[in-house]
Amino acid sequence: MKLKNLVGDRFKERPSDCVIDSHAFSVRGGYIKYVANGIYSLYPPMKRITAKIENIIREEMDASDCQEVLFPVTLPASLWEESGRYESVGDELLRFKDRSGSPMVLGMTHEEAAVQLVREYGQTYAKYPFAIYQIQTKFRDEARPRAGLIRVREFTMKDAYSFHTSQEDLEKYYEVMAKAYFRIFQRAGIPEVISVKSDSGMIGGSVSHEYMLLVDAGEDSIVTCDECGFSANMEAADTTVDNSGCSPMRDLEKVYTPHCKTIEEVCTFLNSRVEESCKAVMYQKNADDEYVIVFLRGDYEVNETKLTNLLGEKVHPAVVTEDCGLVAGFCGPYKQNAKCTIIYDRSLEGIESLCCGANEENYHYVGLNIKRDIGDVEYVDVSKIRTGGICPCCGKKAIKISRGIEVGNIFQLGTKYSKSMGMTYTDEDGSVKTPIMGCYGIGVGRLAASVCEAKHDEYGPIWPISIAPWQVHLCCMRVDKPECKEFADKLYSDLQKAGVEVIYDDRKVRAGAMFADADLLGVPVRITVGPKNLEAGEVELSTRDKRVKKLVSTDSILDETKALIKELFDEINSKVTD
Amino acid sequence: MKLKNLVGDRFKERPSDCVIDSHAFSVRGGYIKYVANGIYSLYPPMKRITAKIENIIREEMDASDCQEVLFPVTLPASLWEESGRYESVGDELLRFKDRSGSPMVLGMTHEEAAVQLVREYGQTYAKYPFAIYQIQTKFRDEARPRAGLIRVREFTMKDAYSFHTSQEDLEKYYEVMAKAYFRIFQRAGIPEVISVKSDSGMIGGSVSHEYMLLVDAGEDSIVTCDECGFSANMEAADTTVDNSGCSPMRDLEKVYTPHCKTIEEVCTFLNSRVEESCKAVMYQKNADDEYVIVFLRGDYEVNETKLTNLLGEKVHPAVVTEDCGLVAGFCGPYKQNAKCTIIYDRSLEGIESLCCGANEENYHYVGLNIKRDIGDVEYVDVSKIRTGGICPCCGKKAIKISRGIEVGNIFQLGTKYSKSMGMTYTDEDGSVKTPIMGCYGIGVGRLAASVCEAKHDEYGPIWPISIAPWQVHLCCMRVDKPECKEFADKLYSDLQKAGVEVIYDDRKVRAGAMFADADLLGVPVRITVGPKNLEAGEVELSTRDKRVKKLVSTDSILDETKALIKELFDEINSKVTD
Repeated sequence: MKLKNLVGDRFKERPSDCVIDSHAFSVRGGYIKYVANGIYSLYPPMKRITAKIENIIREEMDASDCQEVLFPVTLPASLWEESGRYESVGDELLRFKDRSGSPMVLGMTHEEAAVQLVREYGQTYAKYPFAIYQIQTKFRDEARPRAGLIRVREFTMKDAYSFHTSQEDLEKYYEVMAKAYFRIFQRAGIPEVISVKSDSGMIGGSVSHEYMLLVDAGEDSIVTCDECGFSANMEAADTTVDNSGCSPMRDLEKVYTPHCKTIEEVCTFLNSRVEESCKAVMYQKNADDEYVIVFLRGDYEVNETKLTNLLGEKVHPAVVTEDCGLVAGFCGPYKQNAKCTIIYDRSLEGIESLCCGANEENYHYVGLNIKRDIGDVEYVDVSKIRTGGICPCCGKKAIKISRGIEVGNIFQLGTKYSKSMGMTYTDEDGSVKTPIMGCYGIGVGRLAASVCEAKHDEYGPIWPISIAPWQVHLCCMRVDKPECKEFADKLYSDLQKAGVEVIYDDRKVRAGAMFADADLLGVPVRITVGPKNLEAGEVELSTRDKRVKKLVSTDSILDETKALIKELFDEINSKVTD
Repeated sequence: MKLKNLVGDRFKERPSDCVIDSHAFSVRGGYIKYVANGIYSLYPPMKRITAKIENIIREEMDASDCQEVLFPVTLPASLWEESGRYESVGDELLRFKDRSGSPMVLGMTHEEAAVQLVREYGQTYAKYPFAIYQIQTKFRDEARPRAGLIRVREFTMKDAYSFHTSQEDLEKYYEVMAKAYFRIFQRAGIPEVISVKSDSGMIGGSVSHEYMLLVDAGEDSIVTCDECGFSANMEAADTTVDNSGCSPMRDLEKVYTPHCKTIEEVCTFLNSRVEESCKAVMYQKNADDEYVIVFLRGDYEVNETKLTNLLGEKVHPAVVTEDCGLVAGFCGPYKQNAKCTIIYDRSLEGIESLCCGANEENYHYVGLNIKRDIGDVEYVDVSKIRTGGICPCCGKKAIKISRGIEVGNIFQLGTKYSKSMGMTYTDEDGSVKTPIMGCYGIGVGRLAASVCEAKHDEYGPIWPISIAPWQVHLCCMRVDKPECKEFADKLYSDLQKAGVEVIYDDRKVRAGAMFADADLLGVPVRITVGPKNLEAGEVELSTRDKRVKKLVSTDSILDETKALIKELFDEINSKVTD
C-alpha cells in the first residue's frame, strides 16, 4: 500500500505520558490510539503485526494438536460461581448485569468456559488427552494499566486448555507446549526469551512457568543464576541465607535504645551487625484483620506473594492500634504476647545471638537465641532473594536479578477447575475420575510491544521480518522527477506481483521526513530510489537495523530484495528449535 | 485431522428448543455450545467455518481499499455521550461501570470509536477518502435472542466505516462496497442474496440497503416485485393503494351499530365493504404518553416502523382511559375531539364514502367524505404493503412478500456522527467542513448459520467448499480390515501432503453412524473406502449434495479428488461478479 493512504499519524515529539520506548513508538508511529485508561484501538500497522503474531501462534498450536475454538467475551456469573472465582477474584474481574438483571462477567481468562465447553465431550477416557485454544479479546480491570500495550485492561490473548487422565500425561503435554512457546517467541524474532519457574497466583495449580523477555523496562523481577542457569520469578525463587560465621551465643540482655525505631538505627546505636538483627514486619489479614508478624533478618525484605501463598489468604500492611498489644518499632519475638500469627523467616535460622525489639517502648534485647529463649520454631521462606545471593539450585552465590516482561505463561492446573465444576470421566475400569488440566497463555498485543521494547533504536522499532507490518519500505526520494517516479512505481508494482509486502512512500516530502517515517514504521528492508543513484543505474538496498546498506543495480534489485527477505527469514528460522 | 480427536459431540435427536434447522444442526453437529441466553462458544468446525468467512471478507475489504484496524469491545460512555447515543439507544446497549466507577459500554457498533480513531488523522482534505474496518466481537443485549447464531447477544462482526468530502464520493464508495458485499456472499456460496432498500433505524442516515438471504425461516419480511425486480424491506416499501372504482359520494349518516367493535363486524352488520371503511389504530408516544390515532383503510395494517420514523419518536399501543376522550371501538375522524395527534394513512385517499366510528358508544357514521366533512388532510404512508399490492417502482400489482435473513447491511450515514463528535477537516480552499460517512456491516456467525439454513437437507448442512470446515471427509468403513485401514491411512497422508483439508474417520463404528456424522459435518467431498470396492481396486467419491457419486480407481483417487475440489471452487467462482 501507499504510505500516503495509510490511516494514522506519525510524529516526532515523544508524548510526555510514555515512560517506556515501545509505548512512545507505538504512539508516535501511528500504531495505537488511546481510547480509555488501558484501552486502545489499533491502527493498520499494529493490526498487521498482531495478525502475523496470531498466525504464528495458530500454526504452533495447530501443530501441537491443539484445536481452535472460540469462547464468549461475556460470561454468565454462574460459571464463575461454579469454580468459586466469582467470589475469590478481586476487582480485576469486571462484573455487570445484563438487561434482565442476570449477573455476568467479562472473561479475563477462560478456564470455566473451557470446562463448560468440553464437560460432556470428555465423559469417557477414550477422548483423552485433548487440548483447545482460542485467540480472543479479554478484559482485566487492572488498577494501574501502564506502558501502552504492555499492561492494558482490554487485550487479545491466546489461551489454551488441555485435559488429561494422568499427571504424567499432563507433564508430557506441558513439555510439548513449553517447546511450542519457545518456537513462537523464536519465530516472532525474540529467541532470547527464557522460561522461569513461577508462582501460579490467581489461576491456581502447582507447577507453572513464565516466559520472560529480559529488558530494562520490564515490570517483573527475574532471578537467574549465572553458574547453573537456574531461573525463576521472585515469588518462586527460594531464598537461602548463609548465617555461618556469626557471633557465638551470649546471655539475653534488655537494653535501653532511645529514639531508635528502625533496625538500622538500633544496630548503629548498639554497634551491632544488621546481619545479626531480627526485625518485625507487621501485616493484617484482609479477611478478619488478624495481625501477622513476620520476623526476619534485619537486612532482608518480605516477599508478600510468598507470604500470601504461605497463609493461603491475602494480607495488607498492619495498622497498629493502641490496644492491639503490639509496640510499633520495638516488636520482637521474645515475650511477644499480642494475639497474632507469628512467622519466622528462614533468614534467621542459625543465628546464635540476635538483636531484636523488646515489645516495650525504647527497649531492645541483645543476645536473643531463638532456640534457647523461645524454643523450637518453624522457619519458612517468605523473604526476597537478593542479587549475589545463594542459588537455590547450585548453591553458589551467583544470583542475578534482572527486569523482564512476561510474554507468556504455562500452568499445570491439576483438578482445581474440573473438580469444582464437576467434570468427570469414566475410566477404562469403569471408575469415575476427575480430569487433570493445564492452561497456557500468550498476550498478543503485549508480545508485539515487547518485541518493540527489545528491538528498537532511538528512531523507532526494528521489526523482525516475521511480524513486521510490511517486508519492504520503498522510498521514492523525488516524485517530481519523472525518471525516479516511473522507476519506483514500476518497482512497487513488480514487488507486489512477486508477493512482497511493500509499503510505498511516493509523497512529495523532504528526505528527512521520509526517513523518519520509515524508521518509525520499522520495516526491515528498505529500498531508496534517488535521482543520483538512478542515473548510475542503481538504487540503495538497506536493512532497518543498518547491517546491510548497499547499492544494487536497477536490473537486479527485485531479485536481491527477494533474496534479502529470504535471508532475514532464514536467520530467524535458524534459531527455531525443534 | 482425525474425527475421533475432534472436540465436540454429534447426536441424532433434534433439541426441542431449536425452532429452525440451522440451529438444530449447529447443536447436533457439534458446532456451537450454549453458554447463556444468546451467547455461544464455537467448537472447532464452526471456528473453521467462521475463519474462512472472515478471510473472504478480509480479502474483499482489502481489495476495496479498506484498511483493517481493531477497536475495543469495551468503550468509555463518554464516546457515546458525544454522539448522543448513550441516551438515545435502549437496553440493547450494555452499560456498566469499571472498578473506578467510570461508566462504560460494550460496543454494539463502532461509529463512535471509528470517528475517535481518525478524528485527528482526517483533519485535511488531502487524506480523503479513506475507509477502515475491523472484525471483532460485539455485544447487543437483545431482548429475545433466538435461532442459534442467527440472533445472538454476542457475535463477531465485520464493521467498516468510510469517510468522504462529498456525497458523490460517498455514493461512489457505497457502490464499491455494495459490489464487494455481493462478492462476499457469492464466494461464501450464497449468490442468491439480494440487496433491498431499508430503513436505517438506530444507526441513522438516509440511504441504506440490507442484504437478504431468502429462506422460509428468516425473521424479516422482504418486499419484492416479480415484474420489475424492485426490492425493499417492509419499512422501506411505500404502500400504494388503488381506490379507483369505489362507491360514489353520499350523505353522512350516523347509524346505530350495537355490539360491533371491530371494523369487520361493523361492515358485516352494515353490509358495506371493508375496503370502504376507515379504522382507527391508537398509540401513545413513549416520551409523554400523548395519544396518536392512525386512521387507515379497514383492511390495512399499521407498519409501526414507518409510524416511528414519521413521528421521530417511539410509540406503544394505547391504553384507553375513561377520561382520555377516546371511545374505544368507535373512534373515527369526524368530530374527533380528543387531544391527540391524528394521522391519515394514504390508504384512505380517494375513497368517496367511508364507514367509520362516530366517537360514541354503539354508533358509526356511513358516507363520510374526508374532504367534504373534515377538510384538506395530509395523507402519509404508515401502512404495511401486502402481497399482490402495487409495486411502488413499476406500479404493477406484483408485490411478493418473502421471508429472509439479513446477512449484511450498508448505510450512507451522512454527518450524523462526524458532526456530533466534532470531526472536521480543512478543505482545499481553507474552509472547515464536516466529513460524510458510510458504514458497512456483516455478522460472521449469522452468515455461517444463514448458509446452513439455505444449504442443508434433512441430514445436515451442505457447506459450500469455500467455507466448509474441511474439503474432504474420508471414511474408512472397516478399520478392522488391514487392507482398508492401510489404504485409507495412506490416502489420508497423501491428501494432506497435497494440501487438501481432510477430516479422516477411522473409528470402529457402524456405517450408519459414520455416515450420519459425515452428513452432520456437511463436508462437500466424501471418499468412502470399503472392502468390497477396494477388492475391485476402487473407492467411492461423492459430494455431500449427492450430485456426484461414482467409483474411482485407487490409482486416480487423489487426482480425481483434487479435480473435484477445483470443480466445486470453480462453480462458486463462476458466480462471482466483478
